[in-house]
Amino acid sequence: MGNENYAETKIYKVNEPLKLKSGKVLKDVKIAYQTYGKLNDNKDNAILVLHALTGSAHAAYTNKKTGKKGWWDDMIGPNKAFDTNKYFIISSNVLGSCYGTTGPTSINPETNKPYGLDFPVITIEDMVNLQKKLIDFFGIKKLITAGGSMGGMQALEWAIRYPDMVKSSILIATSARLNAQGIAFNAVARNAILTDKNFNNGDYYDKETPSSGLAIARMIGHITYLCEEAMYQKFGREFKDAPSFDFGIDFQVESYLAHQGKIFVDRFDANSYLYITKALDYYDPIKEFGSLEKALEKTNSRFLIISFSSDWLFTTAQSKQMVHALIKLNKDVSFVELESKCGHDAFLLEFEKQTKIIKSFLRG
Amino acid sequence: MGNENYAETKIYKVNEPLKLKSGKVLKDVKIAYQTYGKLNDNKDNAILVLHALTGSAHAAYTNKKTGKKGWWDDMIGPNKAFDTNKYFIISSNVLGSCYGTTGPTSINPETNKPYGLDFPVITIEDMVNLQKKLIDFFGIKKLITAGGSMGGMQALEWAIRYPDMVKSSILIATSARLNAQGIAFNAVARNAILTDKNFNNGDYYDKETPSSGLAIARMIGHITYLCEEAMYQKFGREFKDAPSFDFGIDFQVESYLAHQGKIFVDRFDANSYLYITKALDYYDPIKEFGSLEKALEKTNSRFLIISFSSDWLFTTAQSKQMVHALIKLNKDVSFVELESKCGHDAFLLEFEKQTKIIKSFLRG
Repeated sequence: MGNENYAETKIYKVNEPLKLKSGKVLKDVKIAYQTYGKLNDNKDNAILVLHALTGSAHAAYTNKKTGKKGWWDDMIGPNKAFDTNKYFIISSNVLGSCYGTTGPTSINPETNKPYGLDFPVITIEDMVNLQKKLIDFFGIKKLITAGGSMGGMQALEWAIRYPDMVKSSILIATSARLNAQGIAFNAVARNAILTDKNFNNGDYYDKETPSSGLAIARMIGHITYLCEEAMYQKFGREFKDAPSFDFGIDFQVESYLAHQGKIFVDRFDANSYLYITKALDYYDPIKEFGSLEKALEKTNSRFLIISFSSDWLFTTAQSKQMVHALIKLNKDVSFVELESKCGHDAFLLEFEKQTKIIKSFLRG
Repeated sequence: MGNENYAETKIYKVNEPLKLKSGKVLKDVKIAYQTYGKLNDNKDNAILVLHALTGSAHAAYTNKKTGKKGWWDDMIGPNKAFDTNKYFIISSNVLGSCYGTTGPTSINPETNKPYGLDFPVITIEDMVNLQKKLIDFFGIKKLITAGGSMGGMQALEWAIRYPDMVKSSILIATSARLNAQGIAFNAVARNAILTDKNFNNGDYYDKETPSSGLAIARMIGHITYLCEEAMYQKFGREFKDAPSFDFGIDFQVESYLAHQGKIFVDRFDANSYLYITKALDYYDPIKEFGSLEKALEKTNSRFLIISFSSDWLFTTAQSKQMVHALIKLNKDVSFVELESKCGHDAFLLEFEKQTKIIKSFLRG
């Protein structure tokens, strides 16, 4: 296309220290972000788009260098679900990540070396508090939030923490907290990183990286992102070639996972994986407020909650838990379970179905 | 109890070489086994009990040294599901394991060192062919087989491969083949072992063992053996103590998995884990015969097939696939899906429910 839109990542340097939930304080915090569309004069057309575990600020448009489109490019753009003709869309990289926002790969101002495990443990609440500073910088007082998976948790936290700012919240393939199985998968994934021969207590930035452990973590992740039906449709029990009768890659599903592991270690940091999965595990407004109703009591947002039938990591039952709490509180909530065979990955793939529902919700 | 029964493991040395499915040949093969009850004069009261991935010949009674009961002690004994007053029960350790039967930990007669990865890749069919030699040694011509999980696959293979010997087959929490998700979990588990810093291409028997990788493999296994509901019941999202704000063990479910990993590496061999999971992945009579009906066509066995409602590793749908094929073939098949919250582990835990059904089936 002649008029292809290109993505540009900017950095906002936060002036004041960031106080974390743990009580620790982070200095010199930066937040990487992209924007699409234009902020109107009233500054009331902003949508903050929130990414999942391994996402980045690059949610839409094309990266000029790599030619790659953003992770939600199907959803963000002119006339798309998040319509850039109408809305000013902000996407920022989360605290603790490795795509420009301050995280364990950043230089610790006190040592002039990458933080590694000296980076403090961060939470979903901390991620949201940092995003708030970016929103303040834009002078935005009211906004819409939208995100899938961990992005949905951030959207939920926005509604809870900043009830006077959030007009509408779009929570997709998410829940108010991970279930025990989700924590278990994250624990094993972290274990693979922590026991990698190259992990070196997180201090590996000038050495070989813990790529085996990180690849295993990613493979575990991918199993949970697909459902058995999706795996069956994609790979069945087909061999890559013939049975090897050794411990090489035999089945197509093995080949897929190995490939996913391999490409991931080139694009993601093992320490960031530790920090962000820990933030996922910790998030639990139900425990913090005593109940989901108490957590949601003061929200002033409209809610759209979308789940996918084959998602077994963030189940429809978990979405319904939020829906029921909101209904009890007489809040404005719409809920749809979309039929999909894509498992948890559906929020990144089923854009047509989501677009219809999101457009209708945003019009409402 | 004064009259406690003690288990005794015996070794049967196979006289002839064992020809494997891969075409390779194993010499000096031994098979470890235990028996409970008495073989009658007609030699027609034998039940061969078949263990799962990490089981051993010690299925019942008490190990005198350790005081530990067998893995199916609740099911085998006087008046139990497999009644030792009536039946002669044989339990043997599978080929490739590390509990007395020849496997990668055994001494390779050609090098006088443990096989390690020089051990040939083995299959479910090879396991069954070795068991057949033990049954021949006893002079048994007709028998009943019973097993859960991988044990059920062996029972299925017995019915297919030795149709004139098997009178009855009890297949519990099993399927005719792993689904793609099952292969994926095994692939990641093997990957954790293969990339462990101490793996040393399988040659670690006089060195530090790949315990981190094996522990990760076991943790992945345990997630698949429980269901989310069982995890929720057992652990919920409870912290072990308080949030640590570091990467130590935070949640009870993490503590459980870490404990399971730790105790497993003291009792199991990493190479055996590789070999046996590969055998699980490879087993596929549907592919081999062209269809499940063709595979089961010549069986002369009665079948009892039991699945558990919360088992997501070997699902009820997979059990039903076998049931439907047997019904199409006009074979004698009984099927029960037992309600359970124990996930795949149910076959080791829900002994009361299983006992009732198995007793009734064996009477019939």
